[in-house]
Amino acid sequence: PLYLITPTYTRLTQKADLIRLSHTLMHIHNILWIVVEDRSSKSKLVTNLLDRSGIEHVHMNVETPKIFRLRPGDRKYMQHRGVEQRNLALDWIRMSYELSQGVVYFMDDDNTYDIELFHHIRKVNKVGIWPVGLSGGNDYEGPICENGKVTGWYTIWDTRRMFPIDMSGFAIHLQVLLDSPSVYWDRKSRVGNLESDLLISLGIERGDLEPIDDTCSQVLVWHTQTVKFEYLENRMERITIKNLEKYMDLEV
Amino acid sequence: PLYLITPTYTRLTQKADLIRLSHTLMHIHNILWIVVEDRSSKSKLVTNLLDRSGIEHVHMNVETPKIFRLRPGDRKYMQHRGVEQRNLALDWIRMSYELSQGVVYFMDDDNTYDIELFHHIRKVNKVGIWPVGLSGGNDYEGPICENGKVTGWYTIWDTRRMFPIDMSGFAIHLQVLLDSPSVYWDRKSRVGNLESDLLISLGIERGDLEPIDDTCSQVLVWHTQTVKFEYLENRMERITIKNLEKYMDLEV
Ligand SMILES: O=c1ccn([C@@H]2O[C@H](COP(=O)(O)OP(=O)(O)O)[C@@H](O)[C@H]2O)c(=O)[nH]1
Ligand SMILES: O=c1ccn([C@@H]2O[C@H](COP(=O)(O)OP(=O)(O)O)[C@@H](O)[C@H]2O)c(=O)[nH]1
Ligand SMILES: [Mn+2]
Ligand SMILES: [Mn+2]
Repeated sequence: PLYLITPTYTRLTQKADLIRLSHTLMHIHNILWIVVEDRSSKSKLVTNLLDRSGIEHVHMNVETPKIFRLRPGDRKYMQHRGVEQRNLALDWIRMSYELSQGVVYFMDDDNTYDIELFHHIRKVNKVGIWPVGLSGGNDYEGPICENGKVTGWYTIWDTRRMFPIDMSGFAIHLQVLLDSPSVYWDRKSRVGNLESDLLISLGIERGDLEPIDDTCSQVLVWHTQTVKFEYLENRMERITIKNLEKYMDLEV
Repeated sequence: PLYLITPTYTRLTQKADLIRLSHTLMHIHNILWIVVEDRSSKSKLVTNLLDRSGIEHVHMNVETPKIFRLRPGDRKYMQHRGVEQRNLALDWIRMSYELSQGVVYFMDDDNTYDIELFHHIRKVNKVGIWPVGLSGGNDYEGPICENGKVTGWYTIWDTRRMFPIDMSGFAIHLQVLLDSPSVYWDRKSRVGNLESDLLISLGIERGDLEPIDDTCSQVLVWHTQTVKFEYLENRMERITIKNLEKYMDLEV
């Protein structure tokens, strides 16, 4: 199967993002969705959402240690996000000896995935790679391919990276992860180097990369982001007592 | 069937937004997706996306007149968006006499819709109504319902509106639109009053409203927004000649 690993955290747009992602995954057969919440306990919201989706899943949680959490006002890139969550999923996968072989793909909860992408991922033997839309400050970022081999990179951000690619631009065969049992996502990676460092740690070389097609000619995943929801100013003053009496505290 | 009307415009995040929306609609049977591009001609991108989705659809286009278009630096709310596009869809629906009865719903291309919502919409006799998540500057906005009747509104933004509800918070039976053949979305509506004004023009009264369930107890649609994509500064300087030679101009 495909092992799809998604870190996720509680915020007002979380349910909407996960609903959209689940609608995509509900079109894909033979997958295991490993969803890891960045919380000290599993939420009812994610539990119900996963159950309702009908998708085969594993639901776990681990809270990002306080020192690594973004503080109010921090820019996003000041901390790697989702690291402990993805690593817990790696632990789970490595410890579940009964797993059948398959391909592992890290899917953030706010990206956009084309259904066709998963057909390609299924064929990965070692490490599959492909361009990612709206990534790296450009229309897309990723490999330049000729005759089914990676011959260069289309990237403008930190071009010194050995593998200049976003999280959503590659997938790894389970066996590669089993062969390097002590390799994890590394908080000590420099900004934007998490992905490249993981592939280096796994001993991957550029020649190992398997382009999605001969010329990497399609964008099938987009690094979309959802606008952070902001309450209207003076919200609490505007909510009249009259309304509050009847107001139902709905899950959003 | 359900007549689902979506205005859409060309921007870097358009394909991603439409892909996600199409994945949701691919789960819904017996729909007609009326997609109206805000352009002087139909795009290849939307044409292919609709064809690939397999969803029954009508694809049209009409460009927003220059005077009504947002200019760089304008805040979104300074112009109503999608008006001419939704009105063209209304024209099409009203002129397609052979249409079987059904319910009309206006779906913006960047919102998030729960599959369950459509089961409720199908049962609408006149005007169905329900709460919308992440809307009106609050966790949700919409009707407060008791025993299947609207008895108040949970809203904090322009509370004078007769129907304080977002575009995605109601659906109208086709017959209501056929009975008022000259009613359209109106650019002269005040900011945020487009929806309320349409329902008033259709002669709807609060007592006509059909809540989604007895107590309007579920949020099944979210007014999500996708972060506008921004290129990295000095992008053109960073794209080296070497890369550009092999660079393929992919559709994103
Ligand atoms: O405190 C956080 C922030 C983010 N994430 C998850 O980590 C992934 C990447 O985060 P985000 O999308 O915010 O960053 P981006 O990749 O868009 O820069 C997403 O699946 C988030 O749900 C998390 O688990 N904890
Ligand atoms: O110039 C424009 C801007 C927006 N839209 C469409 O109108 C709807 C509402 O626009 P948007 O989502 O930007 O506004 P919001 O409702 O999020 O405030 C969406 O379906 C857009 O694709 C359009 O047709 N032309
Ligand atoms: Mn993200
Ligand atoms: Mn919108």
